[in-house]
Amino acid sequence: MAGRLYGIGLGPGDPELLTVKAVRLIGACPVVAFFAKAGRRGNARAIADRWILQTSEELPLYYPVTTEIPVDHPDYNVSLAAFYETAAATIARHLENGRDVALLAEGDPLFYGSFMHLFVRLRETFATEIVPGVTGMAGCSAAAAAPMTWGDDILTVLPGTLPFADLVARLRDSDAAVVMKLGRNFEKVKAAFVEAGLLSRAIYVERGTFANEQVVPLAEKLDVSAPYFSLVLMPGQGRRP
Amino acid sequence: MAGRLYGIGLGPGDPELLTVKAVRLIGACPVVAFFAKAGRRGNARAIADRWILQTSEELPLYYPVTTEIPVDHPDYNVSLAAFYETAAATIARHLENGRDVALLAEGDPLFYGSFMHLFVRLRETFATEIVPGVTGMAGCSAAAAAPMTWGDDILTVLPGTLPFADLVARLRDSDAAVVMKLGRNFEKVKAAFVEAGLLSRAIYVERGTFANEQVVPLAEKLDVSAPYFSLVLMPGQGRRP
Repeated sequence: MAGRLYGIGLGPGDPELLTVKAVRLIGACPVVAFFAKAGRRGNARAIADRWILQTSEELPLYYPVTTEIPVDHPDYNVSLAAFYETAAATIARHLENGRDVALLAEGDPLFYGSFMHLFVRLRETFATEIVPGVTGMAGCSAAAAAPMTWGDDILTVLPGTLPFADLVARLRDSDAAVVMKLGRNFEKVKAAFVEAGLLSRAIYVERGTFANEQVVPLAEKLDVSAPYFSLVLMPGQGRRP
Repeated sequence: MAGRLYGIGLGPGDPELLTVKAVRLIGACPVVAFFAKAGRRGNARAIADRWILQTSEELPLYYPVTTEIPVDHPDYNVSLAAFYETAAATIARHLENGRDVALLAEGDPLFYGSFMHLFVRLRETFATEIVPGVTGMAGCSAAAAAPMTWGDDILTVLPGTLPFADLVARLRDSDAAVVMKLGRNFEKVKAAFVEAGLLSRAIYVERGTFANEQVVPLAEKLDVSAPYFSLVLMPGQGRRP
C-alpha cells in the first residue's frame, strides 16, 4: 500500500507554535522532507528541530536558486519547475514504497509557499492530507499585540512585489492590510504607505514569535533591510462596542 | 503580584489543531475563561475540552445577545459594551488577585472575534500575551485541500455583512478571496459570486477540520443555511512554476 503525503504547517517560527497534530505526524512519518537553500539547514528544518526524531529519514530539498535570479526572469521559472518535478519524483518514490512523508511548510501550507507546488504534482496519484498552521501574519500580529480586524473590516493581503501604484491604491482601499514578501521591496512598500497617507498606522514586524523578534512602527524603521521572516501590518479600526 | 492575561488561539475546530503552547498555557493557568451563548457550553469550551484540567476554575462569559438583535441596531452595541465592561472587570479581579487567566478564542485571537474587546480593556493595566492560532480560513482551506494564494496573488478577506454591490466589486478585484460571517448573509454572498462571474471558483466549507466537516462547490449548495463555522473560499490562480 502506498504511503500518504502530509503537508505540515509549522507556524510562524516559535517551535511551540506547531499544532499538536503537526508534532504527532512529524513523529509518526518515517520520512520528513523540507525545502532549504543549498548549503543551509533551512528555516523549516530549524523550526521543526525539536520535534524530529533521530530515527526519521530526513529528505532535504535544495532550491537550485533563491534570490540569485529575479522571480520574473524566464530562467527562474524553468529552473524552479525542473526542481519541483525532481523533488516530487523523489517524494513519490518514498510513497510508492509505502512510506508516509511529512513535508514541512513554514506558516500554513496553503498560504503562499513552496509546499503547494509539490502538492499539486502529487495529489492526483497519492493520498494527501493538509495540517493547517499558524500563519506568519498571525504570529506577527501576536508579536505586535495588534488586533487586526474588527467587526466588518476588510483585510487585504498584499505581496510587496506589486508595482508601487498598485500598492498605494490597494492600501487606500483597505480597512486592514498585511504586506508580505518585503525583501528587496521594502523601500517601495514604505514609500507606498507614505503616499497613501497611512504610514502612521503601519507596524514593521521581523521574525515575529522567534526569540529575536522585532516590532517597530514602520515610520521609525530607518534602514531598508527586511529579512525573509518580516512583514508590515496595518491593523483595522472597525466597529468595537 | 498581578496575574497575566493570555489570549489563547484555539484554531479552527479540531482539538488537535491547538498549538503546543496553547495546550501548555491552558494547563498552567488557574483560571480558564471563554465566551458562550447563555445556556450553552459554547464553541470555544467544546474545542478546548480535552485540554482543560479538572482543577482549573472555569469562567464562562455569557453574551447578553447573539443574533436576537441585529448588529447594526443601537441596542446591540449598548448591550455588548456593557457586557464587555462587566466581563473585563470579572477577569481583572482574578488578575489583581495574582491569578493568571487563559481567555480562549476560536481561530486566532486577533483576527475578528470577541477576545479583542476584552484585550483592549485590560492591556493597559495588566501584563498580556497573545498565543496566535490557526485561523478558520486556514482550517477550511486545508479541509478543501485548496491552495489559496500563489506567487503574487492578492487575497481579500470579506465579511458577508457587506452590501451586495461592495461584495461584487471586491470579488471582481481579488485574485483570491475568503468570505466570512455568512449566516443570514448566505444568499446575498452566493448571488454576489454569480454577479461577479466567479461562482465556478467558489467553495463552501462548513465546520472545516471538525469531524462533521462539509466541503461543496458553492454552485452545488442549494439550501441557504450557513452555521457559525462556515465560509466561502475563492482560491487564487497565480504564478506556479
